[in-house]
Amino acid sequence: MSVYKLRYGTPEEVVPSRFAPTPKCEILEEVPEGAKGITFTRSARGCVLNIPLDPTAEVYGFGLQLKGFRQRGQKKMIRPNADPLSNSGDSHAPVPFFVTTAGFGVYVDTARYASFYCGKEMRPADGRPSSAEEDMIAQQKKAREAGDGKSDGDLAIDVFSTLYEAKRGTERNLVTVEIPVAQGVDIYFITGKDILSLVSQYNMLSGGGCMPPMWGLGVLYRCDMKFGADEVLKMARRIRELQIPCDILGLEPGWQSHTYSCSYLWDAGRFPHPEETVKEITDMGFHLNLWEHAFVHPTSPVYRDLLPYSGDWLVWEGLVPDFTLPEARKIFADYQKKLVAMGVSGFKLDECDGSDFTGGWTFPNHACFPSGMDGEQYHSLFGTLYLQTLLDALGNERTLSEVRNLGALAASYPFALYSDLYGHRDFITGVVNAGFSGLLWSPEVRHATDKADLLRRVQCVVFSAQALINAFYLSEMPWEMHGCTDEVRELLRVRMALLPYLFTAFYDYHTEGKPPVRALVTDYGEEEFARTVADEYLFGDAMIVAPIPSGEEERDVWLPAGVWYDFFTGERYEGGIHHRATEGIPVYVKEGTLLPLAEPVEFVRPDTRFDITLRAYGDCENAVARLAEESDTTYAATYTVHRLTKDSEGDISPRYRVVGIEKIG
Amino acid sequence: MSVYKLRYGTPEEVVPSRFAPTPKCEILEEVPEGAKGITFTRSARGCVLNIPLDPTAEVYGFGLQLKGFRQRGQKKMIRPNADPLSNSGDSHAPVPFFVTTAGFGVYVDTARYASFYCGKEMRPADGRPSSAEEDMIAQQKKAREAGDGKSDGDLAIDVFSTLYEAKRGTERNLVTVEIPVAQGVDIYFITGKDILSLVSQYNMLSGGGCMPPMWGLGVLYRCDMKFGADEVLKMARRIRELQIPCDILGLEPGWQSHTYSCSYLWDAGRFPHPEETVKEITDMGFHLNLWEHAFVHPTSPVYRDLLPYSGDWLVWEGLVPDFTLPEARKIFADYQKKLVAMGVSGFKLDECDGSDFTGGWTFPNHACFPSGMDGEQYHSLFGTLYLQTLLDALGNERTLSEVRNLGALAASYPFALYSDLYGHRDFITGVVNAGFSGLLWSPEVRHATDKADLLRRVQCVVFSAQALINAFYLSEMPWEMHGCTDEVRELLRVRMALLPYLFTAFYDYHTEGKPPVRALVTDYGEEEFARTVADEYLFGDAMIVAPIPSGEEERDVWLPAGVWYDFFTGERYEGGIHHRATEGIPVYVKEGTLLPLAEPVEFVRPDTRFDITLRAYGDCENAVARLAEESDTTYAATYTVHRLTKDSEGDISPRYRVVGIEKIG
Repeated sequence: MSVYKLRYGTPEEVVPSRFAPTPKCEILEEVPEGAKGITFTRSARGCVLNIPLDPTAEVYGFGLQLKGFRQRGQKKMIRPNADPLSNSGDSHAPVPFFVTTAGFGVYVDTARYASFYCGKEMRPADGRPSSAEEDMIAQQKKAREAGDGKSDGDLAIDVFSTLYEAKRGTERNLVTVEIPVAQGVDIYFITGKDILSLVSQYNMLSGGGCMPPMWGLGVLYRCDMKFGADEVLKMARRIRELQIPCDILGLEPGWQSHTYSCSYLWDAGRFPHPEETVKEITDMGFHLNLWEHAFVHPTSPVYRDLLPYSGDWLVWEGLVPDFTLPEARKIFADYQKKLVAMGVSGFKLDECDGSDFTGGWTFPNHACFPSGMDGEQYHSLFGTLYLQTLLDALGNERTLSEVRNLGALAASYPFALYSDLYGHRDFITGVVNAGFSGLLWSPEVRHATDKADLLRRVQCVVFSAQALINAFYLSEMPWEMHGCTDEVRELLRVRMALLPYLFTAFYDYHTEGKPPVRALVTDYGEEEFARTVADEYLFGDAMIVAPIPSGEEERDVWLPAGVWYDFFTGERYEGGIHHRATEGIPVYVKEGTLLPLAEPVEFVRPDTRFDITLRAYGDCENAVARLAEESDTTYAATYTVHRLTKDSEGDISPRYRVVGIEKIG
Repeated sequence: MSVYKLRYGTPEEVVPSRFAPTPKCEILEEVPEGAKGITFTRSARGCVLNIPLDPTAEVYGFGLQLKGFRQRGQKKMIRPNADPLSNSGDSHAPVPFFVTTAGFGVYVDTARYASFYCGKEMRPADGRPSSAEEDMIAQQKKAREAGDGKSDGDLAIDVFSTLYEAKRGTERNLVTVEIPVAQGVDIYFITGKDILSLVSQYNMLSGGGCMPPMWGLGVLYRCDMKFGADEVLKMARRIRELQIPCDILGLEPGWQSHTYSCSYLWDAGRFPHPEETVKEITDMGFHLNLWEHAFVHPTSPVYRDLLPYSGDWLVWEGLVPDFTLPEARKIFADYQKKLVAMGVSGFKLDECDGSDFTGGWTFPNHACFPSGMDGEQYHSLFGTLYLQTLLDALGNERTLSEVRNLGALAASYPFALYSDLYGHRDFITGVVNAGFSGLLWSPEVRHATDKADLLRRVQCVVFSAQALINAFYLSEMPWEMHGCTDEVRELLRVRMALLPYLFTAFYDYHTEGKPPVRALVTDYGEEEFARTVADEYLFGDAMIVAPIPSGEEERDVWLPAGVWYDFFTGERYEGGIHHRATEGIPVYVKEGTLLPLAEPVEFVRPDTRFDITLRAYGDCENAVARLAEESDTTYAATYTVHRLTKDSEGDISPRYRVVGIEKIG
C-alpha cells in the first residue's frame, strides 16, 4: 500500500498537481513491481502509456461519470463538458484516475483531454505476428500440406477453434492512455489491497478529503431566480413556518444586475438594500449562498482591472480571467470579499465546465491565456482554480458550496458538483461513481412530475453528500406544489438525524481519505457480485443505500455477506442474496453497528446540542459509535472524536448528549 | 466563382486530397479578396485558422449532421463516430467543409479531428482592449471625473448600454478552426454567388458527383441476417409475387462463416451452394449486395497475407488492414473479386466509422499503421479507402452501394450512408444536410411501431438518394407485418416513376456537381426564410419534399416565392407563405416544370424501355424536360441527354418513349 510517482518523458508545466494542495501521504519514487510492464512512447500527437491489466480485472473511476460504471472495455476521454449525453467520459468533472480490482490505481497528472482505453488488445508493436498468430499459421500450413481436402476457410476455422480460441484475451491486455500535446507525464501508481485503500490514498495525495462545517451538511434550498428581496424573505419565513429543515438559502442569477455574463453587482430593482436583506436572512439561522459564474461582463466593477489578466476569447461577451495568475485571483477575490463581509458564506460556481456543444458557450480549446496556458488546459483546471479564488474570498470560514466543474486532486475542496441534467438513474449513477475520484456529487431535486417523482428524488438527496433542493425556477417549494410537505419534512428530518454520523464520515474523509459516500465494490470488492453493483452505495461505513429510481415501484437489492437490518423497519436480511424492496428508500445497517442518531434540528447553530439516541443493531457488546466534533467553523478548528459504547449516556461534550439506546434485532 | 487553394505552414502528408480523385475544376493559387483576412498560427497543439465571417452570415455543412442544421454559433468537431447522440459534429460522415451565405465556403484538407467554432468573438490577439472596450473605459473615466454620485457599477451599466451594446457583434467575428497535430494545412477557399454554386464547385473539386447505374436507384431490400439460401430465395420470390419494386437484394452478416470480425467466407450451413444461390437471385432480376466490414478474422483466407499490412491494434480480434498500402488493397480486393465473379454487384461496408464509445470497438486514435499513418487519420479516411478497395474488386461495373463512414472529397463514390440510429426527425435532418458536403444519405426503413410509422418512413425513403428497406432483423417484409402492402407498393411505384428524373439529377451531379437532394437554402438562399428550413429539401431541380415526421399528423410547409403544385393532388400553392399539410408526404413541383414520369417498372433491366408521361405544371410552352440515358452500366458508359418539350412524343431512344402529356393547373 503505497503511492509511487513515476516520470515518463518531460511533463508539461501546467498540470493539476501544480495547483493542488500539499499531499498528505508519502510518495515513493522507485518503480514498483506492478508498474514495471508500463511502456511509454512519444509522437507528434503527444504521448502514450500502455499499462498492463489482468484480463479479469475490473476498472472504475474517471470522475463524475453519469452514464457508466464498469469501465473495462470502455473508452473514456477526460473532457469537461456540461452536456454528457453518452458514456464517452465527457462529464462536469472528469478525472484522469482509475482504480482496478487488480490491486492498483493510476492517476495521470495531466490537464489534457487524455483518452483511456480500458482493456484493448494489441498486436506486438514490432508488426510481427503474435505467438498465437504464428501458431495458427503453422497449423494452417501443416493442414494444407496434409491435404485433407478442406478449403482454406475450413482449415482456418479448425485452427481458430482449437488453438487461437484458447489463447484469446490472455495476452496483450492493456489500459492504453493517450495524452495529447504533452511529451511526457508523471503518473502516480497507487497500490493497495482493495479499492478503498486505493481511493483513500488518492484522496490523501489530493490533500485529504474536505471538512465542511456541520451546517454545510444540512439542507440547502435555492430560491427562484426571479425572486427579489421580499420574495426571498417570504420564502425564508415560510420554510421556518413549515419547520422544513434548512441550513442554507441560495440565490440564483437574479440577484445580479447583469447575467450572462456576470456583473457581480446586486440588482438594484430586486435587491435595493442587500445588506439588510442578507442580515434578515442570516438572522433567521440561514447561511447565504450566491450563484455566479466567472465570465466577467463589461458592467462589472472588476472588468477593467481584469483586462490584462484574461484570455483572448470572450464568453457571453465576458472576459475569462486567468485564475492561474495571482493578479487575477486577487482582483476577483478582493471584490467578492465584499459579499462575504455582508454575510455570504458560500457560492454556487456555475458554467465553469463549459459546453462545446450547447450554443458554443465556452472559450476554444486553443484559447490563449496570459500565463501561457491554453484553453484545453484551462477547461480541465477552471473549476478548481475558480473555487480556490472563492476560497480566498471566503477567508477563514469553512463552507460547503457548489461548483459545476472539478478535475484531478480535488478531494480537499468543500464544493459539491451538480448538473442541469435530470435523469434520476443518471443521478444515482453519479452518487455511486463520484467517490472513486475524490468528488462530492449532489443529486439535486428541482421540479417533479408528481408526488411520487418528488419523493423518490428527495429520498436520494437525503442520503447524499449535499442535500440540495434547487428550486431555481419554482416560485413555491416543490412539496407544497405536490401536497406532500409532511412526507418531505419527515425525509429531511432523517437527514438531520444522520448529521453527526455523516459529519463523522467526513472527518474520516478529511483525515484518512475514506469517501463518505462510495460504491459497494470499494469496501466489498472481494465479493464477485459487488463489482457489478452500479445502483447501491455505502453512506458512511455502516449503511447501504439502494434508491428506487423515480418511475419505479420496487427494485432488487443485493447486500454483502453478513447480516443487515432495514434502517426504517428494523427487518433483518441475510447478505449475499437478492431481495425485493418496495417501500420508500431501501437503507440497511450492518449488524454490530452502534448507530448514533440525533433528534433532528432544523438547522445547526454554533451552540446546537444534539440529543443522540444510540441504535444498536444486533450484538453491540463491543461496538463503538464514533462522533466527531468541531471546535468551530474555521479552518483553524480542532476536532475531537468521541467513542461511545452501548453504555454511554448523558452529556458527552458541548455538542453531544446521549439520551437513550434502542435495540434492533 | 472560383476555387482557390491556399497553403498555410507545412501540411501533413496524410490528407484527404492525397487519396481523392482528380479534381474536375480549375484551382487557382492566388489569394482572393475574401480570404485576405484569414490568419494562421501554430503551436505545440497543432495549428489554428481564423476566418473572418460577416456577423449576419449563416453557416451550413460539416457532412452528415443528424442533430443540427444552422451551424452559426455552434462548434463542430470532425470526428467519425457511429453514435452521434448530440449536436457535436460527431457523425458517421463528418466533413471539414462549410458553406456560408456570405459568398464563400471553405474546405480544410485535413484527416485530423479538426474543430470548427462558427462565429466566436475574439479579443484582439495582442491582449490590448478592443476599440469598444477602450471607448467604454474612457467613458467610465469621464463619468467618474464628472462625479455625478453614481457607483462604479451604475456607471458601467450606463456606459455599456449607450456604447458597448451598439457595437456588439460587429467586430471580431470569426470561424476559428483548430487542426490538431498538424503544423500546416491547405484550404480550398471557394467563392460563388449562392450555396448551390459553392457546393457544386466542392463536388467538382471532389471529382464530380457519382453516377450510379439506373438500377442502383431502384429499391434495395436487405434480408434477415439469419436467413439461409432457401429463405432468401423464398423472400425474393415473395417480393416478385407481390410485385414490390425491387432492384437489389442485400444479405446481412449471416452469409459469412464468422462475424464479428469477418471471414468473408460463405457460411457452409446457411449457404451450402453459394454460386447456385447467387445465380437464382440474379436470374430473378435482382442485383446482389453483400454485407461486410473490414476487420479481418483469423479464420479469413486473407488474414495471413494481411498481417504485415495491418495496424498494431485488433478490433473484435480482427486485423485492421492499412488500405493506404497497395499491397493491402490488392490482397483484399483480389479476394473479393471472387465474390464479384459469382455475381455480386454491390457491398454494404459496415462499422468503418468506428465507435469510441459503444463497447470500445475501434482502434485507438494513436494506433500505428505500417504506412506511418496514425489511428486518428485512418478513422477519417477509413470508409473512403475501404470503398476504394471494393471498387477495385467491383471492376468496371458501376454500383450504388452502402458505406457507414465517409469524409472529405467523397462526392464521386457511388455509396450511400446509413445509420443504426432510427429517429425519424434525425433521418430527415440527414437528408437535408448531406447535400452540403457531397454525400448521399439513406433514411432507411427497418421495423415500424405501426402502420402509420411505416408509411411515414417509406414516404421519406421514396424521396431520397437511395431507397433502402433494411429488414436485417425482420423475417417478414415490414408492410406484410403491418398489413399495408398495397400502400407501400404504391409508394415504391412513385419511386420507380421518378427513376428517369432522378437519374437525370444524378447526371447533373456527375457533370456539374449539383446534388440531387439538397436543402432549400442551397437554391433559394436569397429568401430569408429559406435559410432556416431544416426539414424540407429539393429532390432534383423541380420538386420540394416536406416529409411529415413519424408520429405527426400534419406539418407546416414553406415554399419559395412563385407558384407550386402538389405533386399528388395538383393543388396550387403560392410560395412565400406557410400552409398546413396533412396528407401523405407533401411534395411540390415548381410552376413551369415539364416533369417526365415513367410507367413504373419493378426493376431495371439493361433493355428496359420507360414509357414516359410528361406532366406539364402551368405554362410549359418553353419548358424542357431533360432525360439522361446511359449507354451501359460500366464506367466506360457514355451518356446522352434528351431534351423533351411539350410536343415530344413516341420513341425517343432505346430507353425512353413518350406515351402522353398531362396538364396540371
